[in-house]
Amino acid sequence: MTSPMTDNFDYLKSYLAEKKSLVEKALEEYLPGEEHFPEIIFQSVRYSMLAGGKRLRPILCLAAAEAVGGNASALLPVACALEMIHTYSLIHDDLPVMDDDDYRRGRLTNHRVFGEDIAVLAGDALLTEAFCLLAGKDAAGRFPPEKLLEAIREISRSAGLFGMVGGQVADIQSEGKSADQQTLEYIHLHKTGEMIKVSVVAGALLAGADEKSVNALADYGKNIGLAFQITDDILDIEGDKDALGKATGQDAALKKMTYPSLMGLDQSREIAKQYLGAALKCLDNFDGRAEPLRLIAKYIVERTV
Amino acid sequence: MTSPMTDNFDYLKSYLAEKKSLVEKALEEYLPGEEHFPEIIFQSVRYSMLAGGKRLRPILCLAAAEAVGGNASALLPVACALEMIHTYSLIHDDLPVMDDDDYRRGRLTNHRVFGEDIAVLAGDALLTEAFCLLAGKDAAGRFPPEKLLEAIREISRSAGLFGMVGGQVADIQSEGKSADQQTLEYIHLHKTGEMIKVSVVAGALLAGADEKSVNALADYGKNIGLAFQITDDILDIEGDKDALGKATGQDAALKKMTYPSLMGLDQSREIAKQYLGAALKCLDNFDGRAEPLRLIAKYIVERTV
Repeated sequence: MTSPMTDNFDYLKSYLAEKKSLVEKALEEYLPGEEHFPEIIFQSVRYSMLAGGKRLRPILCLAAAEAVGGNASALLPVACALEMIHTYSLIHDDLPVMDDDDYRRGRLTNHRVFGEDIAVLAGDALLTEAFCLLAGKDAAGRFPPEKLLEAIREISRSAGLFGMVGGQVADIQSEGKSADQQTLEYIHLHKTGEMIKVSVVAGALLAGADEKSVNALADYGKNIGLAFQITDDILDIEGDKDALGKATGQDAALKKMTYPSLMGLDQSREIAKQYLGAALKCLDNFDGRAEPLRLIAKYIVERTV
Repeated sequence: MTSPMTDNFDYLKSYLAEKKSLVEKALEEYLPGEEHFPEIIFQSVRYSMLAGGKRLRPILCLAAAEAVGGNASALLPVACALEMIHTYSLIHDDLPVMDDDDYRRGRLTNHRVFGEDIAVLAGDALLTEAFCLLAGKDAAGRFPPEKLLEAIREISRSAGLFGMVGGQVADIQSEGKSADQQTLEYIHLHKTGEMIKVSVVAGALLAGADEKSVNALADYGKNIGLAFQITDDILDIEGDKDALGKATGQDAALKKMTYPSLMGLDQSREIAKQYLGAALKCLDNFDGRAEPLRLIAKYIVERTV
């Protein structure tokens, strides 16, 4: 006899595996092959894009579409573009002039394999190709053009100065400074939160959700984004390097501002759970089709990788 | 008594000054102010964007719109986005891991003022904000959504793996290798040519030009792009450092593959003139409204800065 908990866990596991496989097949299709000239940049881009990872952002995009009655497959170009933007940010964050990381997703970081110059350009290329995919004929054939423009607007805003880039700058600037909750919240909301939120928003928007549902899902995304980043900070202290596929203890080494450094592990866990509760509340008016979003929220806080 | 040549020169001078002023006023409006948090990234972005420069790409975009009977002012968000993409590419090209340049447009390069980490992120931000501007409400209120999506598609393609990024990679890879014309043409067509071409194409497309006119202008753009880059390479040997606002002799120092290194200065000048002739021929079926495009083509080959 399996408990409902185990059932949920098995269901989520197979849901994530199924969606991950969909995303990775689509990425394989959308990413140009290594035979193009100059080969090294195509190799570099594929190296980082096809290195595995949880594919959380694209899966959230597909799950949000399904939660409002949309078709997940239709969202694949958008989901892949979100993963390309996420991967560009990882490649640039790992550079020696940024966090100087040697491992990512269990493999050497992009610049350690291809050199720093190519790694900068691979990030630039992925960010650019993400918009090429979003405005591409494939996506344009699936959605009303006004909606697609709105999604591009939301995604670029979440990735730019008032989103991820702003958060990354605040994160760098906070190194070595004593933590304060206001700055910490700014960093979490922007560095990680905005791209997680917009993944959900883009999925719902393009699946034809009404404004009220899009707003509720945006709030859900904001809350799981915060829960995700706090859990990430906890795992950087408590997590297993091999399971995570990257070095741990990096935040302490770089004197980063994190929740655990500000208020300790126990209270950080408590706050992550509060954000989880708030995220679930945002889904109160959604039916069973939002069940994957509920389970993903719980997974984000309980995960060990 | 002034010769027609002088008249043309004066006309072009005032045309370029007027359009440059339009573009710079619009940039000032579209770029967020330095009061936003975290201030350093807004300062860094504005430092490089408002450092002057010829504003060739945005001016070409406006001139192409006018050549097909469109309104230049309507194209300003698109023109500014093109200049943002160009500026991002300069910031990243100047990085120590790339060309390692200390001066650009007569001022210290971005990373020399703000540090390499912020310079990488300023480039990332400008590339992202360019798409935010292209898909933004301002642009969306001016053009049919399908046309705007087509422009975003063309611009991102020209900036990405099959355009500018590919060209930059080929350029880096060519350093120290003996020059061959095929690689050299690939570099010029992609590193500089694609963004110049798409500036013209986007202007014409969004001004409502028919396919035949867009194609003719694309060919014009391709030819002036090649002429521009050959002239750039010649100026890197013969130009005046102070007038150019950047160091000369950099190509030789980095053992870059250039036309002068392949076939000498005289033949390079000859080839630039051939591309100029080809560019002018593309405008044969255009009327007097394409006169600025004709004069800009000549200016590109004859310029000293």
